[in-house]
Amino acid sequence: MDEDDDLTTDREQQHDPAARGDSVVQNPGFEVDPWKVIETELNLDRLAQTESVFALGNGHIGLRGNLDEGEPYGLPGTYLNGFHELHAMPYAEAGYGNPESGQTVVNVTNGKIIRLLVDDETFDVRYGTLREHERVLDMRRGLLHRCAVWEAPSGRAVRVKTTRLVSLAQRAVAAISYEVEPLNDDARLVVQSELVANEPLDGQAGDPRAAAALERPLKSEYAAHREGIAWLVHTTTNSKLRMAAGMDHEVQGPEDTQVFAESGEDIGRVIIAADVPKGEKLRVVKFIGYGWSSRRSRAALGDQVRAALAEVRHTGWDRLVEEQEAYLEAFWDRADVEVEGDDELQQAVRFALFHTLQAGARAEVRAIPAKGLTGSGYDGHTFWDTEMFVLPVLSYTAPEAARDALRWRHKTMERAKERARTLSLSGAAFPWRTINGEECSGYWPAGTAAFHITAAVADAVVRYQHVSEDEEFARTTGLGLLVESARLWRSLGHFNGGGSFRIDGVTGPDEYSAVADNNVYTNLMAERNLRHAAAAVERFPDEAAELGLAEGEAADWVAAADAMLVPYDEELGVHPQAELFTRHQDWDFENTSPDDYPMLLNFPYFDLYRKRVVKQADLVLALHQRGDAFTLEQKARNFAYYEEITVRDSSLSACTQAVIAAELGHMQLAYEYWCEAALVDLDDLQHNSRDGLHMASLAGAWIGAVCGFGGLRDYDGVLSFNPHLPEQITRLSFRLCVRGRRLLVEVQRDGATYSLRGEEPLQIVHNGEELTIEPDQPVHRDLAPLPDFPTPRQVPGREPSRHRGRA
Amino acid sequence: MDEDDDLTTDREQQHDPAARGDSVVQNPGFEVDPWKVIETELNLDRLAQTESVFALGNGHIGLRGNLDEGEPYGLPGTYLNGFHELHAMPYAEAGYGNPESGQTVVNVTNGKIIRLLVDDETFDVRYGTLREHERVLDMRRGLLHRCAVWEAPSGRAVRVKTTRLVSLAQRAVAAISYEVEPLNDDARLVVQSELVANEPLDGQAGDPRAAAALERPLKSEYAAHREGIAWLVHTTTNSKLRMAAGMDHEVQGPEDTQVFAESGEDIGRVIIAADVPKGEKLRVVKFIGYGWSSRRSRAALGDQVRAALAEVRHTGWDRLVEEQEAYLEAFWDRADVEVEGDDELQQAVRFALFHTLQAGARAEVRAIPAKGLTGSGYDGHTFWDTEMFVLPVLSYTAPEAARDALRWRHKTMERAKERARTLSLSGAAFPWRTINGEECSGYWPAGTAAFHITAAVADAVVRYQHVSEDEEFARTTGLGLLVESARLWRSLGHFNGGGSFRIDGVTGPDEYSAVADNNVYTNLMAERNLRHAAAAVERFPDEAAELGLAEGEAADWVAAADAMLVPYDEELGVHPQAELFTRHQDWDFENTSPDDYPMLLNFPYFDLYRKRVVKQADLVLALHQRGDAFTLEQKARNFAYYEEITVRDSSLSACTQAVIAAELGHMQLAYEYWCEAALVDLDDLQHNSRDGLHMASLAGAWIGAVCGFGGLRDYDGVLSFNPHLPEQITRLSFRLCVRGRRLLVEVQRDGATYSLRGEEPLQIVHNGEELTIEPDQPVHRDLAPLPDFPTPRQVPGREPSRHRGRA
Repeated sequence: MDEDDDLTTDREQQHDPAARGDSVVQNPGFEVDPWKVIETELNLDRLAQTESVFALGNGHIGLRGNLDEGEPYGLPGTYLNGFHELHAMPYAEAGYGNPESGQTVVNVTNGKIIRLLVDDETFDVRYGTLREHERVLDMRRGLLHRCAVWEAPSGRAVRVKTTRLVSLAQRAVAAISYEVEPLNDDARLVVQSELVANEPLDGQAGDPRAAAALERPLKSEYAAHREGIAWLVHTTTNSKLRMAAGMDHEVQGPEDTQVFAESGEDIGRVIIAADVPKGEKLRVVKFIGYGWSSRRSRAALGDQVRAALAEVRHTGWDRLVEEQEAYLEAFWDRADVEVEGDDELQQAVRFALFHTLQAGARAEVRAIPAKGLTGSGYDGHTFWDTEMFVLPVLSYTAPEAARDALRWRHKTMERAKERARTLSLSGAAFPWRTINGEECSGYWPAGTAAFHITAAVADAVVRYQHVSEDEEFARTTGLGLLVESARLWRSLGHFNGGGSFRIDGVTGPDEYSAVADNNVYTNLMAERNLRHAAAAVERFPDEAAELGLAEGEAADWVAAADAMLVPYDEELGVHPQAELFTRHQDWDFENTSPDDYPMLLNFPYFDLYRKRVVKQADLVLALHQRGDAFTLEQKARNFAYYEEITVRDSSLSACTQAVIAAELGHMQLAYEYWCEAALVDLDDLQHNSRDGLHMASLAGAWIGAVCGFGGLRDYDGVLSFNPHLPEQITRLSFRLCVRGRRLLVEVQRDGATYSLRGEEPLQIVHNGEELTIEPDQPVHRDLAPLPDFPTPRQVPGREPSRHRGRA
Repeated sequence: MDEDDDLTTDREQQHDPAARGDSVVQNPGFEVDPWKVIETELNLDRLAQTESVFALGNGHIGLRGNLDEGEPYGLPGTYLNGFHELHAMPYAEAGYGNPESGQTVVNVTNGKIIRLLVDDETFDVRYGTLREHERVLDMRRGLLHRCAVWEAPSGRAVRVKTTRLVSLAQRAVAAISYEVEPLNDDARLVVQSELVANEPLDGQAGDPRAAAALERPLKSEYAAHREGIAWLVHTTTNSKLRMAAGMDHEVQGPEDTQVFAESGEDIGRVIIAADVPKGEKLRVVKFIGYGWSSRRSRAALGDQVRAALAEVRHTGWDRLVEEQEAYLEAFWDRADVEVEGDDELQQAVRFALFHTLQAGARAEVRAIPAKGLTGSGYDGHTFWDTEMFVLPVLSYTAPEAARDALRWRHKTMERAKERARTLSLSGAAFPWRTINGEECSGYWPAGTAAFHITAAVADAVVRYQHVSEDEEFARTTGLGLLVESARLWRSLGHFNGGGSFRIDGVTGPDEYSAVADNNVYTNLMAERNLRHAAAAVERFPDEAAELGLAEGEAADWVAAADAMLVPYDEELGVHPQAELFTRHQDWDFENTSPDDYPMLLNFPYFDLYRKRVVKQADLVLALHQRGDAFTLEQKARNFAYYEEITVRDSSLSACTQAVIAAELGHMQLAYEYWCEAALVDLDDLQHNSRDGLHMASLAGAWIGAVCGFGGLRDYDGVLSFNPHLPEQITRLSFRLCVRGRRLLVEVQRDGATYSLRGEEPLQIVHNGEELTIEPDQPVHRDLAPLPDFPTPRQVPGREPSRHRGRA
């Protein structure tokens, strides 16, 4: 059994960093299907990426799409939202206020593993011959199917069919149906179903965006088993969190099938042994339960998981699948985006929506990380990505998930206020990156200084409130978030002699600039934040008094908003991203080679910060989020100016560029940016999908469709549309949940149709015209003519990826 | 022998960080003497500070003034210039170009230790009674004397008299004369003279300015002994440096005095045992030799030290002392500054000059660290302190030392060029902090971004050349430094559309600002650097061609210099330190408590950078170093503006403020700043003299006297003077080495007298009037009337320390 075949070599290559730095777009070849992502060939070089693509989650539990048998793997991954370990953050030179404790997501006890022994041979795709292989992510039903026909080195063959789900209905539960069929002879089969804690992770040195490595983060506290059942309880050393994982099994096999169980510190094992005649099947359904807590006792947590297992065992596999289908049917009914004319993008948009839902659906007052629960990239941290990109999508498609994510922010308020005090500020300074609400950004110019995250939180609050009319939330949660964020801005800025309100020395969205004065995006978002807070305290005066609102405090916010400085370069007729930006040196793109991207890995921040090179939409994001602050001509000039210097080394850019390109009538460009946002992970455009999916970019697939081609803007709660279609798309439809109603927007070449489901009419704006849409009375309008601006140029070689890669 | 008395408690307090943060100025009570620093009481709380004050060195070897018997100590310290260990520099978040290897000065094998056993009791000032104590630093002769009368707990008393020197004549040698006299009875005496490697250092957590702790940095390679002699060879693990230390002894004692020697891995020991009758003496002269190399073999280095010992043994103690006196007599003859009217300042200025000399005298193509060789503060690194503050003093008083320090920079050129390439720049980017020429600044905004260090190097080159007329240096060393520094500036800046040459995104001298555009000091220093480089290549065209000078390159430097942007705030009528600085928020000094200083330990850089608070002279340094670029009225307005916001948390500030205060006629203020610079270590004004002396501030004592009260400016090689005296000083004289001549300037109330020693006359300027001074024909001139500007205000509580502390 020691013979190695070629695949072993592939496995090694996969961990060759040079192989990862590969700049050619490689499509691992998923088949195009409107509702499914289908893989028919197992490419071990791309295993880590496909594990991310095939990840399942419900916002509470996340399972990477690792093979059932555990090996080979790209990156093993099982995550519980919020379950993290702490580690010391070292600095070459100390600085006051630098966070000293970092948080890293823990790869928790792996309950996915089911090993198989066929006679004397272990099922392992690296040995023998994989005659057939298929993995199918069924996005409509929320299931991951796998089928493998494997011929052992001895010639004995089996068909293995598995279906995996992470339940959207039962938050603590995942399940796997595992079926083996001997093909060419009777076989002695042994199925080993396991719980494995402290799986070894391969080192991932080099890329700062990967996770901090944790060695054996879990300490065993308890291990137990009964027939067919095992459960383990572990704790973390520094964060003092406790988790439990358990499994139970339903077995269908020949009469003499035997089931054993055993457990040890880091292992739970249920062994099913059967002699299965050719053509018959052994089927095992594995139910997996998880729980974690910072407070509950070992006994309580163990019991909690044991109860979840009892409940799901009572539910049974078939009903669990039915619940899953029902949950998703309801989701697609209110959230689906239909794209006609481009099947690949139809698939990509649904893939994006599916994963956006999985990231947030049952997070329930936990953060939504930048990678969801699909990988350990960025240490499992949440960033502004969530509020600025993911929550707009969830607000219109799964509003409770948006609400819960904001309730999580509110829950971390004391830490954000403490952080503000450390920084000599008032109000709340939300952390740039965190799991538990404490800042763990170790490089303040690109972390703590990016205060715009706090405006993104306020923005998400206001949007959710407008969309939901959730008064309870507005009073108990939204108000506090608005007030404390306004206080932050008021203390962060100051009135200078000339009567302007300046916000100096902060970092905007573009991470190739830092610590500049009066970033236009930041100032405009802060301005709106201040005004919304003033409106909120007027609406809830009693609750505002409880927050210690001072006499004249709200008026002072409005005064700051009124005086907010928005720098403008009269000479060039564009807005500088921040003061003096337009005076800086041109980046020498001509002498920048394709291998020099992403630039942060090849140039010092020093050099990037001082030159005219932009990582990601910054001023252009202001054009989207504060489109009301610019004329169309300003937008056109600004967009052209920034297109020429934006390299898009961030995945938080293409969707915004798509939206503004569409608004300015550059429909081909908009289409290409939209493709880039939507295909970021299916095509592994950033070469790091292995570390997890790019949730903000996936959310951007929806944003590109709805805000780009649909032209949705929702400033101050009025939904306005100005739809246009790119050449490639013949019909686009999307649905929005708005104040208990369902608005369906259908865009075709001949116009847009607005339909409403619900009790009451809805006011919207189409191309400047106010419309009242009555339930079940579709309104049709022509599309507006496209604006006619010259097509902007991009940095050579950094055009949207459709220009660069495949056709 | 285990009884502890009160002093033990004191010893513990000394390591209480809170005790160090003490904000009251505490003078340890050195007696005032024009040529000596005298301590008559041993205060164990202040031991570490006095070890720095009483440190001896020659630029190659540095010995902290630890007690001969080794304990108690504040901070043990024996240093060999350039001998360092490497350590990994950790980052919470990685960044391209961050230095990964740090350098730390090593506390090398301690050869100072001489323990004494009196009958059965070990001489230790913490036990028994110290009846008399005196330590005297004789600055005129370069000797440290100690006299102790100690009564053992048993009542037996001895007088111990020691004299220590680090030879300025024999670079590799130090020596100690150690004499013991039993006072009240005959005594059995044992003197143990030791070499001790890997002394334990107490941890110094907390203050980022202290050294990185190294545990047992030395690996034993060889140990040997003969009668009265021992030597040890060690290497470092990472830096792969090798060092040897050896000792030999001359013993004068009773006939039956016995001398043994022994050695082990980390210990060399010579034991002298004698029965000494009351009133007689046992005298041991210990000769210590050191050597280190990155290339020489163990055998060669051991032999080198053995040879140094033989040579000094041959010289003998008396001649060694004579050589020392002769060396210093010559130094004081060309360098002395006489101050009449303020005895304490007379002492302080000589103390400052003495230590400035000790830091550089025999450095011989090694760096001069910020603390000299007096302590391990700042890890033993050299900064711009050397070129901007120390070298001006050495250029006029010990020109060869200035030359050698610049030759060291030149020797590190390849590393500086490599660093520039890492930063996408041309030419040479000298490191912000280093021992071996490689950057080891771990926080780039306050390190690498402070490119002005490269202008300081060029400035020091030009000054040395003007003062020395050293053609050989100019051709072989100066030219390269000027050309590569000019190339740096040309690549660091750019011509913007408007025709200005901008230098964006760099950090000026003020460390409470960072990464700003067009720092006035930096731009003006770069401008001069560019012009001097253009002049140098014209002077040495052939050598310039060898440096690859391109057609038109020098003209391009001049064009950049001509177009150099110097921002000016028309509205306020002052120069902003950097663009937009004057628009920033006021620091709230009213609500800043005395305990909040130094601010870097109590506020985040984020907050400091974005507000109008200045750590140290920045624009005001430009007023001094580029006084030719400002009118007197501009200077007055700028000085007043920056005085109000400068907190002087750096010791690199008071002397510059003294110089400009004097130029503007604020003589009382100038006097106070001068006092602060000169007394920084004698009075421990920064509360960290324990880590080593502040060489730049000590150099600033000379700068304050000569450039402040003497009004010396040396732009472009013309020495101009405009002397004025503060009320407290009746007469000030100083000497300058200029082109092989000696200029003596004597300032009294009734005028200034310029006298010249040498062969040829010298052109100078007095108050705008050109004078030709002929040898031995003193010229007398009246002092100019003082300018009359309103006295500027300082930050409350941050006035010069004479305002705050003692009278």
